[in-house]
Parts: sequence; structure tokens; C-alpha cells
Amino acid sequence: MAAQVQALYDFAGEPGTTEMSITCGEVLTLLNTDIGEGWWEGKNAQGQTGLFPAAYVRKLSPEESAPTKVAPPAPRYDQAADEWGEQQFSAGDNNYQRAASHDDGWDDDWDDDTYSEIGPGAPQNKPSMSRQQQLTPLPGMPISDFNQQIDDNTSSFGSTVGTVRKNKFAPSSKISGESYLLATLNVEVPETEKVYIVQEGDGYVWAQITQPYNVTVASPKKESKFKGIKSFIAYQLTPSFNNIQVSRRYKHFDWLHERLQEKFTLIPIPPLPDKQISGRYDEQLIERRRVQLQEFVDWMCKHPVLSKSEVWQHFLTCTDEKRWKAGKRQAERDNLLGLNYCVSLVVPEKALLQSQVDHITEQCHTFIGSMDTSVKSVTNMCLAQTKRFQGPYKTDCQKVGEAIYNLGNALSLDEGTVISTSKLTSAIKMTGGAYIEIGRMYEDQPKYDWEPLGDKFHLYKGIVGSFPDVLANHKGAVQKRRECERLTAEHKMEVAQLNEVLRRTDVISYALLAEINHFKSERTDDLKATMQKFLRQQISFYKRIVDKLEVTLNQYDE
Amino acid sequence: MAAQVQALYDFAGEPGTTEMSITCGEVLTLLNTDIGEGWWEGKNAQGQTGLFPAAYVRKLSPEESAPTKVAPPAPRYDQAADEWGEQQFSAGDNNYQRAASHDDGWDDDWDDDTYSEIGPGAPQNKPSMSRQQQLTPLPGMPISDFNQQIDDNTSSFGSTVGTVRKNKFAPSSKISGESYLLATLNVEVPETEKVYIVQEGDGYVWAQITQPYNVTVASPKKESKFKGIKSFIAYQLTPSFNNIQVSRRYKHFDWLHERLQEKFTLIPIPPLPDKQISGRYDEQLIERRRVQLQEFVDWMCKHPVLSKSEVWQHFLTCTDEKRWKAGKRQAERDNLLGLNYCVSLVVPEKALLQSQVDHITEQCHTFIGSMDTSVKSVTNMCLAQTKRFQGPYKTDCQKVGEAIYNLGNALSLDEGTVISTSKLTSAIKMTGGAYIEIGRMYEDQPKYDWEPLGDKFHLYKGIVGSFPDVLANHKGAVQKRRECERLTAEHKMEVAQLNEVLRRTDVISYALLAEINHFKSERTDDLKATMQKFLRQQISFYKRIVDKLEVTLNQYDE
Repeated sequence: MAAQVQALYDFAGEPGTTEMSITCGEVLTLLNTDIGEGWWEGKNAQGQTGLFPAAYVRKLSPEESAPTKVAPPAPRYDQAADEWGEQQFSAGDNNYQRAASHDDGWDDDWDDDTYSEIGPGAPQNKPSMSRQQQLTPLPGMPISDFNQQIDDNTSSFGSTVGTVRKNKFAPSSKISGESYLLATLNVEVPETEKVYIVQEGDGYVWAQITQPYNVTVASPKKESKFKGIKSFIAYQLTPSFNNIQVSRRYKHFDWLHERLQEKFTLIPIPPLPDKQISGRYDEQLIERRRVQLQEFVDWMCKHPVLSKSEVWQHFLTCTDEKRWKAGKRQAERDNLLGLNYCVSLVVPEKALLQSQVDHITEQCHTFIGSMDTSVKSVTNMCLAQTKRFQGPYKTDCQKVGEAIYNLGNALSLDEGTVISTSKLTSAIKMTGGAYIEIGRMYEDQPKYDWEPLGDKFHLYKGIVGSFPDVLANHKGAVQKRRECERLTAEHKMEVAQLNEVLRRTDVISYALLAEINHFKSERTDDLKATMQKFLRQQISFYKRIVDKLEVTLNQYDE
Repeated sequence: MAAQVQALYDFAGEPGTTEMSITCGEVLTLLNTDIGEGWWEGKNAQGQTGLFPAAYVRKLSPEESAPTKVAPPAPRYDQAADEWGEQQFSAGDNNYQRAASHDDGWDDDWDDDTYSEIGPGAPQNKPSMSRQQQLTPLPGMPISDFNQQIDDNTSSFGSTVGTVRKNKFAPSSKISGESYLLATLNVEVPETEKVYIVQEGDGYVWAQITQPYNVTVASPKKESKFKGIKSFIAYQLTPSFNNIQVSRRYKHFDWLHERLQEKFTLIPIPPLPDKQISGRYDEQLIERRRVQLQEFVDWMCKHPVLSKSEVWQHFLTCTDEKRWKAGKRQAERDNLLGLNYCVSLVVPEKALLQSQVDHITEQCHTFIGSMDTSVKSVTNMCLAQTKRFQGPYKTDCQKVGEAIYNLGNALSLDEGTVISTSKLTSAIKMTGGAYIEIGRMYEDQPKYDWEPLGDKFHLYKGIVGSFPDVLANHKGAVQKRRECERLTAEHKMEVAQLNEVLRRTDVISYALLAEINHFKSERTDDLKATMQKFLRQQISFYKRIVDKLEVTLNQYDE
């Protein structure tokens, strides 16, 4: 079948010449590309043949040009702008789901099984706006009594301790991590599940991962169930340690994320894809989500604690429906949530200097506050730049191109022929074509620089955004410790119990210090690579503009 | 005196560090630029010293930083946008004069001498919206009777012939060029004033300029009169043939332009500076006018007929007030206006084929129509691009730079020091600085590419816009000739007189053909050079962006 092209712009052929008028979106059969001077010959649906500027059309791939199918209109900024606008997403989840449910089944159908059916971040289902909660103040009080007090924010003992998220499946005894701190929890953790914190230089770090691995998130597939009535997107995950692919839907990620947040209250959990992602095509949207899931997965794999957690391993490896449900139930019944998880930690013997811990956490607090602002501003900037590149920058270039191209066209009229006999005229037309092409480069570019940069900073936004809760959870433990010291001074608490509280508070502080260091070393390597990659892409982009203009400039010589 | 800098942006110093907050526009004394990492140390007006990002300030030149003078606020896009807007110029001349009269005296005061005090293009003073007028239809009718009929557009003999502009100083016998066509004008033109049209290949051209010269328009000076009470801008013109500088104000150019338009109705006169020019500074505005005056002058010098015209030579060379007035009066009494000028032409003996002339003029008509649209669109595009570069593109880059710079700042907080100990942090700050700098490059760039391109197309817009009148003037003569042929067939006109009409119409046609060819050959060289220069500037711009980003990228290594 002959190649087909689609008009990207209107072109008004000069009447009485061999030029042919074409209309944006029109599909033409390509007859001859050897005309020269930037002209091609084609035939329209009415059977008319004629010449049109090559720069005004794009070639269709064989599947696009299948004769039975009307080609979709070329993407133009004006349309894209509407899809981007806040009005579509400002109302949050509902609009998002509507926008997303076009065809990708991201979260518009649900399994009938029992685990979480909470959509991604639907506010009414979230336990609270913050991961912090007020915990019971009284030492030794049974954890099972805790639920009655959980909303009592006016408690006279206003410290915040050991925050976890509510878990509607978990028995009430799991809600607080306070039992760990107050030494009422004594569980023997198997050696394989123990996590070590070691000294490194002046600081403390998580012991290195003994068997590093990574996981690739492959381009998602559309799968179907109920004999094809329902379709949904599933992402294919392949861990390097077993090379066995598993298929996971967003809701599986979401369930995993909830478990992780419950369990690790001293470790920021990397975020899932942003609900604010939008794209002009569904495919682009799905791909952005894949990239952000890959960022999530990468961070998990590189984290010494998270990477070996049982629920994550289950998520990565389970391929059997029955085992999946069993593992799921087990994870939901996990007792070692929140501060209780600290029973798994093995820390240096040395007691920490509280003043030193205070200094580090205060500095971290200031740092995180400032990072939060700037990470958000980089994220917004990436979104804005993407929008500008694909919108006005592209359009502006194309307006430049069209103005110059039309100048060439006007000049060729004086030659009385469509095929310019003059070098100058054809060089001017080519210049116009080059700017139209540069416009397309602007449209295409964000996926190489602004979007990956934005995806990376989406990750940091999530992690940095979780840090205040992590710090508050630690601070709560420290306050509880002071309270216990006071109680002991007042002879209301045994010295032996206090010593155990002191030791356990140190474990919590060690965990925080290790996590602060982990974040620092991870981001140092990661940000360097990110910025280098970004700058290389930017450089390559502007170099390609230079190349294109230099080719054009050479047309004027000879 | 110590160097001073001015803040270009607000910068909020981190409290409790050596950083100092600075406010956009604030002038600081520079104490130390050897801090490194993109920081400078300075002292503010309150005597506080501290560090601020070097990229956030600009150095002031000695005169700007004179202690008695408050430095002007740095130019920012937001202000510039207001000055650009249509509202300021849309009502035409009056607003223009108001805007222009800030301090340059462009046209706000007038000599008390007698010649034209018509401002640049004020509509109420212009003879008509078009250079075309209805001329008397009756052969042999005395020219002096013409004035009574000049507004009779409903004349049964509706052809348009030999258009000239009204000249309030000229005797009525000069108004029409018809006396030439109808052979009632017989003037002996001295050899030195004769202009030859010669055959070249298939076509006819103006004989080459025997003594080519050029004229430079130098940066204008502010001059004053009435003991300094009035000041005005005068441009300094230096012709290469005598190297004697003359000083001319806009009103002199305007007077010249009127004379040229009266006299040469078959030759498009290049336009004077556009009243729509605006700039953010008066200096920029005056410089743009200078460039457009230079374009006017260049076109004049390269034109075989215009370059030797008496009024132009007078304008270029007269340095004496008395001789100036005498020459001015003489020019205003010039008899050889409009078609009458054709008595000065010497053309080939050969009679022209009317069908061939018709073909060429029709093609020219089509060409000029298309050129008019595209030249206007290139002009508008240049204006729009200038606005974009100096506005949103600059601002967008700076937002990118600020977001990245602030990320570096946030990261350095974790190091507990303003001077980054980390290579990464300082590289990120430098990256931010690079984008802020690229923003400034965008602001500066239009004067190298978009503005010169726009100035060139302002010239073409004027010339192309004059062509329809030129073509109509020729067409009128051709119609008059047909009328005379009819009259002769009806024995109402002598054959001898008809033959003279035929010969003289041929002279007019020769002049048009020569002018069409002149325009073609001039624009071919000129557009080529223009496009090359433009592309080279664009290439250089994007290369400098690449260079800047590459320097930045290298900061991440080592």
C-alpha cells in the first residue's frame, strides 16, 4: 500500500498552479517525494493530486494509515492545554478517576477479594491527614485500652509518640508502637529478620544490603477478566534475584504502600505515582505512571530495611493466587507495626548522647523544611516547563516557521513556478521548515528532560514530605522518655523499667540517625546522576537546534 | 570607591547563618567576590554585611553607582509588558508622540521656517489614504483646469492615471503627470539629470550607478536650541562621497520623504521608521529608529534613480541654513512630478509588446499581494518573538534557575554551612545560576536577531505596500493609451499625437519594468544576507546556551 501522510497544518495552494490545498488532519496518499525544494506530491480523498510542503505533513505508520481507520487529528497545543488545565483535576480524586478511566482501567474496577479497596489517596478513606496521632499517656496502660483515647488530642499529656496508621484489619493491640517503648512488648525476632545499625565514621548507618538486587517495571499490559468484559492495566515486575515476572495492578501497589506506611513509621516510604500526572494521550499517562512506579521500586530495592521486608518480598515474588491471599492476610495481621518494629533492630551498645541526637534532629528539621519548599518548587517548575515546551514554545516556533515558509512561497510566485528556481527561495522555505521542525522538537523534548526530572522530584517530594512525621514520631518517643524519667524521679516508675525505656529510646534514635544518613547518601548519588542526565538532555536538545539551523544556513551558500 | 551591585531578585537569607537577605533593586557595596560557590559578600545601606548569591545581583557601572544617585530599578519584564501593550500606541500618532516625547524631542518642537510642519504620518495632514487620484479624462485639456475636477471620482472616464500627492506649495500645473502622457509637456532635461533604462538579458533595468556611494547614519545626538530650552534628537549622516557629516532631524526626513513620494510615482519610496516602534528604554527606541533610518538611507543609495535625485542630494549635502532653505523651496517648486518625471528617462528605441507588459504586471500584482501578507506576518512575528524573548522566555528560564538554585540552598542547609562543602550542592547552585544567566541572554538576544530582522522587514513592508499604487499608476497610463487609440479610431485624435502617446506609455512601461527588476535583484542579495545574518545570530545564541550548560555539567564531575 502506498505511504500515507497526514496534514499537520492548513495549507492554501496557489490557485492555477500545481499546488494543492490541504486541511489540518486530512490524510493523503503520498505519490512522490522527489519533487525537491521541500515539496511532496500526493493525492487526497477526492482523488485530486498536487504538491504541498513536506514540512506541513507527517508520515503515517502503516497501522495508522490502515484504510479502514480514520486517522486521529494531529495533537495540537490548543487541545492539549484544555486537558492539562486545573479545572480537570482540581476537584481531586473523582475527576482524576474520570479522566483516567478512559481506557486504562487504572482503578475503575475491583477484584471481589477482601483486601483494601481504598482507591489511590481518596481522602475520605484515609485514616487522617497526617500520620501522627496522639497516643495514650499513661505508662503501663494496656494497649487494648488505647482505642478509646485515640482521638483525644486534648489529652493533658500532649506528647506525640509512636505514630502508625489505622489498620481496619489489624487487631487493636497492634495500633500503637508504644508497647515497644514501654518495654511491654517482648518478641523474639528470628535472625533473618533482624536489621543491624552500625557505626560508620562519626555516624550510624543501616548495615549494607548483603544481596543487592533490582526490579524492573516493564511497560504495562492491558489485561482483561470476566471473559474480556473488564480490562485493566497491569505492570510487569521482574526482580533480578529470580527473574520471574509478576503482574501487579495499581491497587496492589496501593495495598503494599499502606502496609509499608503502617509498619515503618521511622522510615519515609517512597510515594506512588502522582494523581496529578496528566498527559495528552492515555499512553503517555500510563508511561509516566510506569516511570514513577519504577522510581518507587528503585528506592525500595536500595533501602536496607525496606528491601528485605516480608510484605515487599511477598509483593515481588508471589505468583500464586492462593499464596497471595495467605500472604496478604499475614501482612495485615503483622504485630510489629510502628515503633514495635524496633524489636527487629540490633544497634551499637553505646548509649547515645541526647544532646547530640537533639542537634541532629533539629538540623534535619530545618533542612527538611527548606527541602520541602524547594522540592515542591522544582516539581512544579518541571510541570510548568513541560507545559510550556509542548504549548507556547512549540506554537511560537511553528509560527516563526510558517511566517518564513510563507515568505518563501510568496517569493516563488515571482518565479511563476511552484518549484523554486531560485536558491534563495528554496533556502527560505527550508528555513521555515526548520523552525516548524524545531517546534516539534520542543513538543517532544519534555519526555527526555523535564518529565524525568519531575518524576525524580515527585519521589523526593514524597520522601521529604514524610520526614516531618518521622521526626515527630521520634520526638514523641523522646518526650515519653523524659516523662518516664520524671516518673522515676517521683518514684512512680521502677529504675529498671526506666533503663529499659532509655535503651529502647536509643534504639529508636539509632534508627532515625541511620535513616537520616541513608537519605543523605542515597540522594547525593541520585541527585548527581539526575542533574547530569537532565543537563545532558538539555545540551543535546539545544545542540540539535544548532545543527538544524546550521544545515539551513548552508542552504544559502553554494 | 568600592564596586556596587544591585539586587535583581529578592533573596531570603537563612536566619542564623552568614547569609544576608536582599531585596530586588537594593544597592549594596561589594566587599568580597572570592567567597566561592557562587556567593559574594556585601554591605547594605544599613551597614549590615553578609553573603548573597552572585547570580542574584548585577554589578553597577561607576556612573550608575554614583553615591548621590539612587540606582534605577532593574528592568523587569512585568514593567516592560505594560510599555509594549497596544493600548499605548493603538490610537496612532498622538499617543506615539506622547510616548516619544519623554525626552528625545523626536517631533515635539518645530523650526519657525516655512517648510512642511506635517508630523510623521498624522492622518489629518496626509493628502489622502492612497497615492492614487482620479485625473481629468479629456485629452488636451489644460492642466490648470484640473484642480476643479480632482475630487470627481464619479467621472465617466473612470480610469486612474498618473497619480501624485497633493503639494500645497506647488503650482497647480504640477499636480498631474498627465501632461507628460498626453504629450503636452515638452521639457528639455539636461544630460546630467537623464536616467537611462537598458536591456539586460530578456529584461530592462535601470542603468547602473556610475559612482556608488553609501551613507552612514550615526548614533543620534541630543541637540538643543533656544539657549538649551528645547532639545531634540538629530541623526548624523555621513555620505562616503564627501565624508562631510550633516545633522538631520526626523522632520527633515519626513519632508524629504514627501518630496520623493510626490516626484516618483513609479518607484516605491522606502519607508521611514515605524511609529509602532517601542522599546523599554528611550535609548533603545532611538537606536531602533536609527537602524530603520539606516535601512531607508541604504535603499536610497542603492537605487539608480533615487540615489541621484536632486532633493536627496540636497538633503545629504547641505550644511548651510540659507542654501538649505533655497534648495527646499526649489524642491517644492519641482515641475517634474509624477509621470512628468518620465521626461528625464531615456529608454530603448524598441516598442514594447503590450501583451508582454500586461503579463509581467499581472504576475507582479499577484506576487506583491502575496508578499504583502507574508512580509507583514514576518514583521509581526519578529515583534512577537522580541516580546516573548524579553518577557516569558526570560522569566521562565529564571524561574527554572531560581527553583534549582534554591534546591542547592536547601541542600547546603544539611551541611550546616553557607559555603557548600559538597561538590554536588555547589554544582546544583551553579546550575541554577546558569539558567538565571540564560534568562538574561534571552532578554538581550532580540537586538541581535529578531529586531534587525524586523527592521529589514519594516523596509520591505513599506516598499511592498507602495507597489500597488505604482502598478495602478502604470495601469492608469495604459488605460489612457487605450482611450486615445479609441479616440483616434473615431477620428477625434490625430495619429501623430497618438503615436506620441504610445511612445510615452512605453517609456512609463519601461520605467515600471526596470523598477520591478530593480526590486527583484535588490531583494535577492539583501534577503540572502539578511537571512544569513539572522541564522548566524540564532545559531550563536543556542551555542552559547549549550556552552553555558556544558560548563555547568562539568561541575558535577571531578
